[in-house]
Amino acid sequence: AYSSGNKKVTLIPGDGIGPEISASVQKIFTAASVPIEWEAVDVTPVRGPDGKFGIPQAAIDSVNTNKIGLKGPLMTPVGKGHRSLNLALRKEFNLYANVRPCRSLEGYKTLYDDVDVVTIRENTEGEYSGIEHEIVDGVVQSIKLITEEASKRVAEYAFQYAKNNNRKKVTVVHKANIMRMSDGLFLRCVRDMAQKYPEIQFEERYLDTVCLNMVQNPGKYDVLVMPNLYGDILSDMCAGLVGGLGLTPSGNMGLNGALFESVHGTAPDIAGKDLANPTALLLSAVMMLRHMELNSHADKIERAAFETIKEGKYLTGDLGGRAKCSEFTNEICAKL
Amino acid sequence: AYSSGNKKVTLIPGDGIGPEISASVQKIFTAASVPIEWEAVDVTPVRGPDGKFGIPQAAIDSVNTNKIGLKGPLMTPVGKGHRSLNLALRKEFNLYANVRPCRSLEGYKTLYDDVDVVTIRENTEGEYSGIEHEIVDGVVQSIKLITEEASKRVAEYAFQYAKNNNRKKVTVVHKANIMRMSDGLFLRCVRDMAQKYPEIQFEERYLDTVCLNMVQNPGKYDVLVMPNLYGDILSDMCAGLVGGLGLTPSGNMGLNGALFESVHGTAPDIAGKDLANPTALLLSAVMMLRHMELNSHADKIERAAFETIKEGKYLTGDLGGRAKCSEFTNEICAKL
Ligand SMILES: CC(C)[C@H](C(=O)O)[C@@H](O)C(=O)O
Ligand SMILES: CC(C)[C@H](C(=O)O)[C@@H](O)C(=O)O
Repeated sequence: AYSSGNKKVTLIPGDGIGPEISASVQKIFTAASVPIEWEAVDVTPVRGPDGKFGIPQAAIDSVNTNKIGLKGPLMTPVGKGHRSLNLALRKEFNLYANVRPCRSLEGYKTLYDDVDVVTIRENTEGEYSGIEHEIVDGVVQSIKLITEEASKRVAEYAFQYAKNNNRKKVTVVHKANIMRMSDGLFLRCVRDMAQKYPEIQFEERYLDTVCLNMVQNPGKYDVLVMPNLYGDILSDMCAGLVGGLGLTPSGNMGLNGALFESVHGTAPDIAGKDLANPTALLLSAVMMLRHMELNSHADKIERAAFETIKEGKYLTGDLGGRAKCSEFTNEICAKL
Repeated sequence: AYSSGNKKVTLIPGDGIGPEISASVQKIFTAASVPIEWEAVDVTPVRGPDGKFGIPQAAIDSVNTNKIGLKGPLMTPVGKGHRSLNLALRKEFNLYANVRPCRSLEGYKTLYDDVDVVTIRENTEGEYSGIEHEIVDGVVQSIKLITEEASKRVAEYAFQYAKNNNRKKVTVVHKANIMRMSDGLFLRCVRDMAQKYPEIQFEERYLDTVCLNMVQNPGKYDVLVMPNLYGDILSDMCAGLVGGLGLTPSGNMGLNGALFESVHGTAPDIAGKDLANPTALLLSAVMMLRHMELNSHADKIERAAFETIKEGKYLTGDLGGRAKCSEFTNEICAKL
């Protein structure tokens, strides 16, 4: 529905099941009368004037202008030299903090029922620096890069997040017993930041200890902040505790904008068959609404989605049901 | 019991609860008439002629001569410059493969009852290289070092282990989508080794995917092989699934010897109070017996320990019981 005063939001539907779950989100947003206007863009790499493949300029401009976007899953182009498109976007827009809330859903039973954690992952450096060398034949080094600047800004984001979302505790996750200088720097930056937020509890834990405790007693943790790779691992593990990547949202926060995305795959085997579960993308869109301070729309949609999952009548295959994506979507719309 | 023909085994009792759990293992071994002779050594760092602290020569000589040892938990000396003593030992004896079996215990209920995995961790390099630099103020790099030599030898160890222990599958765990050269090299070495063991299934998985699947369906996995840090994380996580580090054994395999150890802490709060659980060290000692091809002794002791845990009458506090370490130990001895 076109309405000229509405805030524009970039939409990257993505590959595989991306288009159908994006359509589902759009339908639900329309049913909820969310006052935004979608601007769909294609990010499939194109060959530029320099002969190199890159994200199309129109897509870059759209995100830079709107400063907010929603993104479905993207395939990584096959072939040497192509780095992940997901990573390219994080880099292009300087999306420095990756935020992934994981909460047990009342309607979806797993082994755990008290998970309510948020992993906040440094999203630009660390083990993802991309710097590697073969020193001599058979001897390779990869550089883990930690800077004070990136560590401070993700630390600040974590404490601000905790404060704004009424969270009680921030845990910094590290291996500074092994990587004394790099993780040591990260640790010090978070520790220093903690000083400025005396109302928020703060603790320091080794990554291995967190992994062990998380599977035994996830209720111990609240907000967790950590270097890039540790966030990759812990966020997937936490998603596993509550039902997998089909149910968990994520946001990439940058200095000049934010990109919300579902982090599951493109599921080419079921693409186009109206079988996909749109929940992760929908909950990412809900995170986006909160970021835009459209809280009442966010709450309304989230409630309708949780209610639909809890009732269990219209669940997609991955959740143990037999409903189509469109049936699940229609049920949410009906509740709005 | 002194008996001159018996194989000597180095014993590093360790700190905190180390001495009491070591005494428990010794008592059980005596009850089972295990034909070995213990040689206890102290590894507390001493100042050498060069002024530097290091592991005492007598301890080094003992391990080098006996080529086999059992080790309790060690404290890391406090203060700058001291690296972990556990790591120093791995380095000193070139213990290149760290093996940690995690199996659900019939007698100890957790959320999972079908865990039976073995993590095999490269133990000498990777993120544990110890090479770090501050490039400029606030910019630090740590080097992750991967060599063909170390990757090949741990890969070979993993497949040999699978073969000797009737395991069906080896999974290599990596992030070669991000660290293309370093994890790529590791991956290739394992992939090449897999060719030589056509009777063993082989699969390649991303670390994040394994973390997610492991908490949902650990029965998917069997033997896992991976670079150093990933093993640190995954082995602790797997231990969490079956009840924690108090129940899981480990072995460090080297070219010239092997060192078996419990990987839990020194628990200074309960040290000397006869409250500690000796199970992890005992099961490590059982692994050691199998390594020495004393299989019938190993089986007998393992059965007695599992039986005692299953009956649940003499459990230590960490397992939800009220028994003393000595009562648990005596019950195992009574069953032998
Ligand atoms: C697709 C992959 C490159 C990515 C990562 O490793 O960060 C993914 O696992 C994620 O968590 O977003
Ligand atoms: C004590 C510590 C240095 C060690 C490690 O990180 O390897 C420990 O966590 C382990 O798993 O043995």
